[in-house]
Amino acid sequence: DEELLIRALEEENMDLFRSEFIELHSYDQATFFARVEEGLRARLYHYLSPEEMAELFESLDIEEEDYQDILAEMNPSYAAEMLSHMYTDDAVDVLNELDKEQVVSYLTIMDDESAKEIKELLHYEEYTAGSIMTTEFVAISKNQTVRSAMYILKNEAPNAETIYYIYVIDDDKKLVGVISLRDLIISHDDVMISEIMSERVMSVGVSEDQEAVARQMKDYDFLALPVVDFQQHLLGIITVDDIMDVMEEEASDDYSKLAGISDLDSIDQNPFSAAKKRLPWLIALLFLGMFTASLISRFEDTLAVVPVLAIFIPVISGMSGNTGTQALAVAVRGIATGDIEKESRWSLIMREAGTGLITGTTCGVGISIIVYVWKGEFFLGLVIGVSLLISLFVATLAGILVPLVMHKLKVDPAVASGPFITTINDIISILIYFGLATIFMSYLL
Amino acid sequence: DEELLIRALEEENMDLFRSEFIELHSYDQATFFARVEEGLRARLYHYLSPEEMAELFESLDIEEEDYQDILAEMNPSYAAEMLSHMYTDDAVDVLNELDKEQVVSYLTIMDDESAKEIKELLHYEEYTAGSIMTTEFVAISKNQTVRSAMYILKNEAPNAETIYYIYVIDDDKKLVGVISLRDLIISHDDVMISEIMSERVMSVGVSEDQEAVARQMKDYDFLALPVVDFQQHLLGIITVDDIMDVMEEEASDDYSKLAGISDLDSIDQNPFSAAKKRLPWLIALLFLGMFTASLISRFEDTLAVVPVLAIFIPVISGMSGNTGTQALAVAVRGIATGDIEKESRWSLIMREAGTGLITGTTCGVGISIIVYVWKGEFFLGLVIGVSLLISLFVATLAGILVPLVMHKLKVDPAVASGPFITTINDIISILIYFGLATIFMSYLL
Ligand SMILES: [Mg+2]
Ligand SMILES: [Mg+2]
Ligand SMILES: [Mg+2]
Ligand SMILES: [Mg+2]
Ligand SMILES: [Mg+2]
Ligand SMILES: [Mg+2]
Ligand SMILES: [Mg+2]
Ligand SMILES: [Mg+2]
Ligand SMILES: [Mg+2]
Ligand SMILES: [Mg+2]
Ligand SMILES: [Mg+2]
Ligand SMILES: [Mg+2]
Ligand SMILES: [Mg+2]
Repeated sequence: DEELLIRALEEENMDLFRSEFIELHSYDQATFFARVEEGLRARLYHYLSPEEMAELFESLDIEEEDYQDILAEMNPSYAAEMLSHMYTDDAVDVLNELDKEQVVSYLTIMDDESAKEIKELLHYEEYTAGSIMTTEFVAISKNQTVRSAMYILKNEAPNAETIYYIYVIDDDKKLVGVISLRDLIISHDDVMISEIMSERVMSVGVSEDQEAVARQMKDYDFLALPVVDFQQHLLGIITVDDIMDVMEEEASDDYSKLAGISDLDSIDQNPFSAAKKRLPWLIALLFLGMFTASLISRFEDTLAVVPVLAIFIPVISGMSGNTGTQALAVAVRGIATGDIEKESRWSLIMREAGTGLITGTTCGVGISIIVYVWKGEFFLGLVIGVSLLISLFVATLAGILVPLVMHKLKVDPAVASGPFITTINDIISILIYFGLATIFMSYLL
Repeated sequence: DEELLIRALEEENMDLFRSEFIELHSYDQATFFARVEEGLRARLYHYLSPEEMAELFESLDIEEEDYQDILAEMNPSYAAEMLSHMYTDDAVDVLNELDKEQVVSYLTIMDDESAKEIKELLHYEEYTAGSIMTTEFVAISKNQTVRSAMYILKNEAPNAETIYYIYVIDDDKKLVGVISLRDLIISHDDVMISEIMSERVMSVGVSEDQEAVARQMKDYDFLALPVVDFQQHLLGIITVDDIMDVMEEEASDDYSKLAGISDLDSIDQNPFSAAKKRLPWLIALLFLGMFTASLISRFEDTLAVVPVLAIFIPVISGMSGNTGTQALAVAVRGIATGDIEKESRWSLIMREAGTGLITGTTCGVGISIIVYVWKGEFFLGLVIGVSLLISLFVATLAGILVPLVMHKLKVDPAVASGPFITTINDIISILIYFGLATIFMSYLL
């Protein structure tokens, strides 16, 4: 299929190309578009109308930095017309990747109505409800019959992003109700909208965090949510397809922070851009690591007297790091899914303390026995076991407290990323280990 | 609001309770239900019809192990009737948490048709398309007019899970087309369905992985996907609300594996169940850690001669662990989002090798300089720098290769979890560090 399309492009056989291409789902069109080389791609701008290209672009998923180049390949008036035919939210997503002057130039060529709608959406901050909403919704007034509402709906259907929820507004354009198309089609033609609409309409504020919007959509199983300003004026809607993208984006975000990478959104094109995302963390960790080294070097006397202590450094610091990451993951994920709101912070902390005590005791007793059996030294085993116990307990508490405090301070708890907690716990555990060993040195000789 | 409801329950004022409660969205009803104590909850089974309770249960999100107790609170025939009124997929989710005999007993009391539909869904394996599909879809034949299709739709609307996609089947019940309600309502009444339906209908196989279904739904922006058997018979549909749940479940799954916890799906009720999920990993890591210790103990001679080597163990092993986790995260996330399919494995590996070389060189040179400035020993700095360079390079390669190989072997790459890769890289880096130090010991004296 793809081969056929490429051949048609190469042979400049527009009719064959169109007859195959137009049948494809816009996501498949977009996948083809992103894969084909520049020379052939240029032909597409002549074979497809701006309207057809708009639909393809709504499904396009390329690197953010590539939009600039792709739009530059098009004739400016073709590009502007394409943008005006796109759903406003998707057009805004494209324009956000371009230089400011370019945005202005496209908006100038575009028809006034589209330009106005786009301009309104352009200034909402990233990651807010406003940044993911679109303006192609169906709104009706409540003083009309089902028959006339259906008539409006049929007219709006070709342009609206969804027609499955119809929002009811008053004369001030304030949101007062909602009715689903399902309820509309099973109602009699002469019934008034005000009688069948639901007045308990849920909405989100325009500056609300997209993650909170996603959670609400997921909990209530909506297909769309209306977006309002502080006076309840209906500004736009957010549809479930965009919420799926938000969910993936937020999951990638949390995941990459746990791993200590600044951005996992897209696979990097070359090793330099990949290294750029990882080096900031690695360099921070290098300095933290040197701090750990300087801590150990303060215990050089202890190490000189009991050199065997050195061989257990990795297991104690490694295990504290891992326990801390486990507790961190519980806290970050619980905050992300909202599960943590359901119980008191205090009971959560107490439970984690209990967990740390259980895992610490189990592993502490385990390592004591192993060291005793291996090295035949009871007190060495005891010191290592107690160090591990205390380290795991403290690391678990640190893993839960740090993200909870950050959440309280309205900082994204995920930035207390995995490597950071790991390294902090490295340092704490080494202090505990060498501190204990130094205090009880006389037993270790 | 919640207080009013509780008071109404306490005063056994059914009318007041119902007038408030029935107005709530089923998710809010379910949240109230999960929060109220057992004694009051029992009254709900008398105040609400099995049908009303069914809707509440479809939105209920409680611990898996609690379903058993909750259902035991109900009169068995009430419970069975409630289950028969639930969408089949949700009823199956509840029944999957019960004992086998209980399932049989509920199915026996239930009306035959519901029992039959539930039985068919009960045997699909977890995490497959079959396990998340429901049977309440609207299917029509193509040899009819829009008018008669709308008539069928209006009849089915109260029971169907979605009426926004109507599937077209032939006489053998094979899926041959799809039409959206949007297209239906803008078509003329006398047009034949065969003329306006889309024959390029996308579907998923009943045993397909739920993650692949979620990706398809997200890429194509569908609200529902039909599920077929290997002969294209239409078996059920998967709706977007359930896909949002799958996305969250899969994201939690990958996240918890990176952190080394067996399950993050729900917040644990007590420290023992929390510790149970973390200890398997910690114990495995304890043994790997003891292996690391035994490796270092083979270099005790080197350590005795150059004791300063001990203080850099944590920074070298810690940084290798982190680099490995970064590369692992790129691979696992790329596999999860499907981004990795778009390019060749080979170019991915080469790019990661390049990344490892860049980060390794940067950090290696950095640590050499720091150690030289701090300790005044050029060769010590050189050995540590070269060790870090090689360690980071190898750790990056291990981080990308392990998940790619697992994916190739059809093992979930996320099981190569963070702590596992971290500890493996600990071991490798310590071998490199002490190996180099032993070889070049004469320069370090
Ligand atoms: Mg879209
Ligand atoms: Mg946007
Ligand atoms: Mg956010
Ligand atoms: Mg839901
Ligand atoms: Mg959109
Ligand atoms: Mg987040
Ligand atoms: Mg549902
Ligand atoms: Mg049923
Ligand atoms: Mg299920
Ligand atoms: Mg899976
Ligand atoms: Mg999408
Ligand atoms: Mg469902
Ligand atoms: Mg997975």
